[in-house]
Amino acid sequence: MAAKTSYPFCVEPQEVDFTMRITLSALGGNVLNIAGVDAHSKGFGVDTLNKDNFSWVLSRIAFEFDFRPREYVRYEIATWISDYGRMLSTRNFTLTDQSGITFGRVVSQWCMIDLSRRTAVDLRAVAEQHNDAVVAEPSPAERPRKVPSIDMPPVLTHRVAYSDIDFNRHVNTMRYIELMLDVLPVERFEQERPMRLDINFLKESRYGETLFVSFEERESETLVEIRNDAGAAICRGAFEWR
Amino acid sequence: MAAKTSYPFCVEPQEVDFTMRITLSALGGNVLNIAGVDAHSKGFGVDTLNKDNFSWVLSRIAFEFDFRPREYVRYEIATWISDYGRMLSTRNFTLTDQSGITFGRVVSQWCMIDLSRRTAVDLRAVAEQHNDAVVAEPSPAERPRKVPSIDMPPVLTHRVAYSDIDFNRHVNTMRYIELMLDVLPVERFEQERPMRLDINFLKESRYGETLFVSFEERESETLVEIRNDAGAAICRGAFEWR
Repeated sequence: MAAKTSYPFCVEPQEVDFTMRITLSALGGNVLNIAGVDAHSKGFGVDTLNKDNFSWVLSRIAFEFDFRPREYVRYEIATWISDYGRMLSTRNFTLTDQSGITFGRVVSQWCMIDLSRRTAVDLRAVAEQHNDAVVAEPSPAERPRKVPSIDMPPVLTHRVAYSDIDFNRHVNTMRYIELMLDVLPVERFEQERPMRLDINFLKESRYGETLFVSFEERESETLVEIRNDAGAAICRGAFEWR
Repeated sequence: MAAKTSYPFCVEPQEVDFTMRITLSALGGNVLNIAGVDAHSKGFGVDTLNKDNFSWVLSRIAFEFDFRPREYVRYEIATWISDYGRMLSTRNFTLTDQSGITFGRVVSQWCMIDLSRRTAVDLRAVAEQHNDAVVAEPSPAERPRKVPSIDMPPVLTHRVAYSDIDFNRHVNTMRYIELMLDVLPVERFEQERPMRLDINFLKESRYGETLFVSFEERESETLVEIRNDAGAAICRGAFEWR
């Protein structure tokens, strides 16, 4: 029977914002990097899959943070796969600080694609390694929700450049999170407030494309949408302020 | 007598570009983070200085890279202060990969400022800790050069947002390096070619300002300049292709 795996972290000076607390994008980046490291160490990482010309693609993710730890605080990210179906594998995370408080919960859903055909791969193709990695513990938060579309004028325009793209020449996930944070009123980050962020990844974005970011404030929620020059939605995010 | 201090690294998947080699901005970011960690461990880090309302400010830096290591390669960053004057302290770095090849050399010059008066502080104020840290070994490369100004139309415009700023609400150094890389023709990164990058930091840039990036190709050199909306130069970089 598999067990959760935990990875140690410390809030580095370059990860904090002007409140001296770690940014959501740094936390999100560390979570995603751990997903890669953990899959790699268990034999179904991107490097192994690439031999078959397959790759993992993040479909949806939900982050819940009660607070953001301060500079130099030590914390741990624990991760495990709770289950998988034909199309989606569910990877979970909890973030616990040095005093033992679990301040973050993350649920992510991944699909596998065949890079040459650009089609989804049946996850039974990796069932063997995957079965060995499944831990019989449910997700620590509600699974990622579907984020509704909005129809608002863009408030931020960004041309995809070299520093935005990953090894696949697609915009990396952390940059999408940064673009979503960058349209929020900066005062949002001054308050310490529990929040949840659901993101749906709909389409890849490539070098040279222009991205348009719009947002809409609703009661206790802020919706964000990133579109490309053709008007197609690239990803949608919903911040819930608790 | 002080000795150089070395810090272990490994090229992480999120640090590579489409050539599967670590980006210059990731290397530069790791070098700058080590500067902070090393100063912190020796008692003259930003956190200690902040008690007197002082801070370190990077004035100039020169990077020389013979090549960029590939994903999962282990390397080490060694750092030492070679000397300091009344205004500038010189911190050096060498980067050596797991096979023992020194592929990078960095020379950086820092001044200390009084945050309340916005003036430079005489470095004799920290002479005691500083003397203990000085290592009698010269810089591993030519000291950072003065970069000439250019007069070219901007090819990239960027509004400073939340994700660009550090704890001081100023644009962080890594973002300047990214903006400089983002105006180069993307083919530059396809070739493995030894290079040197000199950067002069002239003025701070703040949240909400718009930055204009221009560049000029000269024989074996590319000059880049970042200006703000008032037309003032924020920083200048010179790439030398060897």
